[in-house]
Amino acid sequence: MKALIYGGAGKRTLEDKPKPGIKDPTDALVRILKTTICGTDLHIIKGDLPSVMPGRILGHEGVGVVEQVGAAVSRFRSGDRVLISCVSACGRCDSCRKAMYSHCEYGGWILGNTIDGTQAEYVRIPWADTSLYHIPKRADEEAIVMLSDILPTGYECGVLSGTIKPGDLVAIVGAGPIGLAALLTAQFYAPAEVIMVDVDANRLEVARQFGATQSVDSSSGTAVEAVMQLTANKGVDVAIEAVGIPATFDICQGIVAAGGSIANVGVHGKSVELHMEKLWDRNIRLTTRLVDTVSTPLLLKTVMSGRLQPKRLITHRFRLDEIMQAYDIFGSAAKERALKVIINND
Amino acid sequence: MKALIYGGAGKRTLEDKPKPGIKDPTDALVRILKTTICGTDLHIIKGDLPSVMPGRILGHEGVGVVEQVGAAVSRFRSGDRVLISCVSACGRCDSCRKAMYSHCEYGGWILGNTIDGTQAEYVRIPWADTSLYHIPKRADEEAIVMLSDILPTGYECGVLSGTIKPGDLVAIVGAGPIGLAALLTAQFYAPAEVIMVDVDANRLEVARQFGATQSVDSSSGTAVEAVMQLTANKGVDVAIEAVGIPATFDICQGIVAAGGSIANVGVHGKSVELHMEKLWDRNIRLTTRLVDTVSTPLLLKTVMSGRLQPKRLITHRFRLDEIMQAYDIFGSAAKERALKVIINND
Amino acid sequence: MKALIYGGAGKRTLEDKPKPGIKDPTDALVRILKTTICGTDLHIIKGDLPSVMPGRILGHEGVGVVEQVGAAVSRFRSGDRVLISCVSACGRCDSCRKAMYSHCEYGGWILGNTIDGTQAEYVRIPWADTSLYHIPKRADEEAIVMLSDILPTGYECGVLSGTIKPGDLVAIVGAGPIGLAALLTAQFYAPAEVIMVDVDANRLEVARQFGATQSVDSSSGTAVEAVMQLTANKGVDVAIEAVGIPATFDICQGIVAAGGSIANVGVHGKSVELHMEKLWDRNIRLTTRLVDTVSTPLLLKTVMSGRLQPKRLITHRFRLDEIMQAYDIFGSAAKERALKVIINND
Amino acid sequence: MKALIYGGAGKRTLEDKPKPGIKDPTDALVRILKTTICGTDLHIIKGDLPSVMPGRILGHEGVGVVEQVGAAVSRFRSGDRVLISCVSACGRCDSCRKAMYSHCEYGGWILGNTIDGTQAEYVRIPWADTSLYHIPKRADEEAIVMLSDILPTGYECGVLSGTIKPGDLVAIVGAGPIGLAALLTAQFYAPAEVIMVDVDANRLEVARQFGATQSVDSSSGTAVEAVMQLTANKGVDVAIEAVGIPATFDICQGIVAAGGSIANVGVHGKSVELHMEKLWDRNIRLTTRLVDTVSTPLLLKTVMSGRLQPKRLITHRFRLDEIMQAYDIFGSAAKERALKVIINND
Repeated sequence: MKALIYGGAGKRTLEDKPKPGIKDPTDALVRILKTTICGTDLHIIKGDLPSVMPGRILGHEGVGVVEQVGAAVSRFRSGDRVLISCVSACGRCDSCRKAMYSHCEYGGWILGNTIDGTQAEYVRIPWADTSLYHIPKRADEEAIVMLSDILPTGYECGVLSGTIKPGDLVAIVGAGPIGLAALLTAQFYAPAEVIMVDVDANRLEVARQFGATQSVDSSSGTAVEAVMQLTANKGVDVAIEAVGIPATFDICQGIVAAGGSIANVGVHGKSVELHMEKLWDRNIRLTTRLVDTVSTPLLLKTVMSGRLQPKRLITHRFRLDEIMQAYDIFGSAAKERALKVIINND
Repeated sequence: MKALIYGGAGKRTLEDKPKPGIKDPTDALVRILKTTICGTDLHIIKGDLPSVMPGRILGHEGVGVVEQVGAAVSRFRSGDRVLISCVSACGRCDSCRKAMYSHCEYGGWILGNTIDGTQAEYVRIPWADTSLYHIPKRADEEAIVMLSDILPTGYECGVLSGTIKPGDLVAIVGAGPIGLAALLTAQFYAPAEVIMVDVDANRLEVARQFGATQSVDSSSGTAVEAVMQLTANKGVDVAIEAVGIPATFDICQGIVAAGGSIANVGVHGKSVELHMEKLWDRNIRLTTRLVDTVSTPLLLKTVMSGRLQPKRLITHRFRLDEIMQAYDIFGSAAKERALKVIINND
Repeated sequence: MKALIYGGAGKRTLEDKPKPGIKDPTDALVRILKTTICGTDLHIIKGDLPSVMPGRILGHEGVGVVEQVGAAVSRFRSGDRVLISCVSACGRCDSCRKAMYSHCEYGGWILGNTIDGTQAEYVRIPWADTSLYHIPKRADEEAIVMLSDILPTGYECGVLSGTIKPGDLVAIVGAGPIGLAALLTAQFYAPAEVIMVDVDANRLEVARQFGATQSVDSSSGTAVEAVMQLTANKGVDVAIEAVGIPATFDICQGIVAAGGSIANVGVHGKSVELHMEKLWDRNIRLTTRLVDTVSTPLLLKTVMSGRLQPKRLITHRFRLDEIMQAYDIFGSAAKERALKVIINND
Repeated sequence: MKALIYGGAGKRTLEDKPKPGIKDPTDALVRILKTTICGTDLHIIKGDLPSVMPGRILGHEGVGVVEQVGAAVSRFRSGDRVLISCVSACGRCDSCRKAMYSHCEYGGWILGNTIDGTQAEYVRIPWADTSLYHIPKRADEEAIVMLSDILPTGYECGVLSGTIKPGDLVAIVGAGPIGLAALLTAQFYAPAEVIMVDVDANRLEVARQFGATQSVDSSSGTAVEAVMQLTANKGVDVAIEAVGIPATFDICQGIVAAGGSIANVGVHGKSVELHMEKLWDRNIRLTTRLVDTVSTPLLLKTVMSGRLQPKRLITHRFRLDEIMQAYDIFGSAAKERALKVIINND
């Protein structure tokens, strides 16, 4: 079968690989219909993630059709249309029993990382019963593939951890796909304002279309002042960090109101300076989180009811045999005005 | 000044009464701009509430302008435009310190009950600092008067106590003003479905316009079956009781899903039969609540941001000197297709 | 092997039955070391539970040693010492994913109910990975067997659902084993008072020894008055119903303070009269719950740290071949001053 | 009257000052019975707090007797025995209405800071109704004075913000009075282990007597390793920072388990390095808080019920005219083995 292979730092190829099979009784074999590329995949290809070995099939997002299941799989059968979660959860370890699937003792984020992933014609999904979700009949598969990773990440790590309430002032720092996913799901809670902060004018414009009530261009380095002005100098109830660098983290600690929350979503490569000399008496809450995908059933319901329209994040579409080009486009996202790209295999 | 007076069971008159003044240092005197009539006022006039004595000026809702404040009032001054809460909160007793203003040891719901109310040209508001709210500059006064009672009641007793979450199945039993207020504020949380149940086809039609996704006519006595069918026989996550009689309470206990909530908003005059033989193992939660009006600041923000449009509840408008006629109309609400009526004094 | 068999209403026998084996890849076969008898077992023998068919081996509590596991069991192996949960949880259905194992679509309380139970030499445990718990090395098996059902029931349905806080006034109505389990675990939260209500003077005396700060003999029918007097007429913050009849439910609704909780633990056979005409404006919360056993890991930790001493509930000990006599004693619990009886098979 | 006066950096004197009087209708004048010295007072005298001007009477803790009240005070009258909260709360601003009294727009921590404090014979307390608490009849005044600041600080900022649950592994870094207050109140929630970390062997010994289950001497710089070893390399569920320097903050971020909390209590004078490159995917929660004293009623109940014994924190007693010596002792706390000192004026 065709698959996108990581070949060591800087290398990716579309290759022919053997079709996987069932290894454990809890496995399912899924034929991929649609997959996508995540910002993390770009990091892998740069060589930033030592856990990913050369030869690995990348990809941790996708929808597909179950082709075969192991003897202990009871919730799925051949022919079922499924959403693949980016987190593989054994469902029985202490972390999974606490609904912290991201820290599953056996699984977690392993797809396209320590086991072969979804950017291929077929993928083996371990612990299928607790790592796959049925796709409702009239669902749009393109919308659903956004629920593998990006929507639960924005929602769980940003919106839920930030505890957005009706009437809140919210700022989201970073208007990339994850920040926009936070923006879409923040609106579940009727915030008074969602201020989007980014350096890219196009992404801010998209954010406006997606429901941001204000936008702040942070390229000039005065984002903190701008947000404070927009909030009558009180700051925001919830600041969502959706980039992962010290500069954007700094904006968050500069704009959070007394009693407010900073919800970190971004993947950080280095430490940040936390201004405890200013924050110690401000009654704030800072959270970090790797997506647990516990909200997948909830998100499926909001998509089916029309409250959430994740398809709006899709800007480009490719066939699986064009995936090398899809990576090129997604790798120049700002220039190409790309958000999420769909890779079709159906 | 003109005022609507309760004259004993079955009697109401529009009379001239002396203008009130400041009695305690925590009082404010407010000139009424707009008030409205509550279903509770109709109960009072029927003679159902023994706490209300003949001679009482009715009304516990309104917006106005502060005319004078006592020496200990620090948050308001003459000329301020204010929203009057239906609950007068001393702000210092044990209940108030727990934000349960409805059970304030000194106040609570006393306006138009044990002290003179708002259906008059002027009203004395005790503990003004903790019972009045500033009205933002560009706010529409008609929308704001809905925040005295009906919106916080629907929101706190129905939506908050019911803990509606995104993707939830919700049923609201009773599409009168309170049920519709619950419907409007339920949508803060992106429920998948809000099923409205009532015996009045017109009110169900209004509910549809206000965002209900399904409606069930309960006049035939098969509401439980209808709701179960709409929910694939699972029942609803949250059932809001917004009537206050055994029949509607019964619908709620018949449709609540395992793990769900029944949030009672209705004022009950008699006991109900609770089917503990069916419910004991269903992991349900039943709540009762008298509105605390703790959500007033939040609701003001949602109105100002456009997320909430309470003005949609207003169907009729009168001048204060027409209030007798306004009572006639509101007393025949179903026939007149009346929801909330505005009484103008500006 | 020896096993206690339900033979239809009024009949129980100790019989020889074939030793069970592994049926599904998720099963474990457990050799019972210790089991106990639950009040529910007495109800079954009376014929009150139509789901239990004649021929069924009773018992849903126990500790044992794993003898064999199915191919898909990964958390346990032969020789492991285990606690058997009274709830068998598949771990993958919608209810289990919401940690509401009691409503597992495939399991739930099935042991000694719709499948053979633990009052035998061996028992087959389905979904072993999510229905068994490892017993720490230095743990006392007698203490641990109390964690199969009674402790999580008292804790989850009574204490957690009632949301006891430090300084709270708590009343527990019913000082049987379940009420006492609630009493032991209520003390995790440093309540100011725990008032125990029962008709049995001996049980009230035991409750005092277990940490109740007050006791009320309800045999004279004046329990409500007595509790109100003990609470300066305010009532209790949390009332736990641990009997399951209208009279004890009535006490709970009579003593709950404004803003308080009624947590139902008792198994009810008929409906109750709920005084909504008094409660509608009291801001109360009434909960029902079938134990989910989600707290088992937490309870194991509190036992191991010495914060919880469930062994205090044990009053009698028997060998498995004496189980008929154990039932006699437990069936006359008040007269025999019996709380929990241990059935040894080691 | 006698009063302890801050005279500028490094200077404190016991002087005669005019007795204060009622200024505003919401004031109370309180005759001090007992007060104490806080670590913050030592910082003030060093000159670390620019908000405190020379000439200020220090002290923000105390119990006393109401001598006189303003016209708008309704909850207290002359002769009432009262606990003085370290936070003066107006009770009506937005922050107070959200129970975040620490950020009261008019008050907050002002006593012995921007207005004269409690280390004197008399003190004027603004907003008396929401800043004083009645002392129950049989209460021990020495115990109660610990509730002005130190107990609510340890409880709210450490225990509540850290959300300690039964069975949790907890570490408290810093065994000074605040850390010990956190230790005492942590035990409200039946944690499995409370590991106390400090550089002072005597304080660790005291912590053991106060209920710590483990102690770690951090003077050798290997505290992180020691705590990890005590927790089977998992880390703690809750880490409480009760010192306020980068080194102790570092210990907290080094020992928090995935899914755990860091609750900051310490007053920080400089920024810290937060290792987001390690923490971003660890699902942790970091909180900061200035004590709101919202828990004072709860703490009073736990003291009265005997669940909390704050008197154990008292090591020394002085008369008000010996307060200069009391400062000397408290200023050499480690050497003198001093925790809290009582200053008597009765």
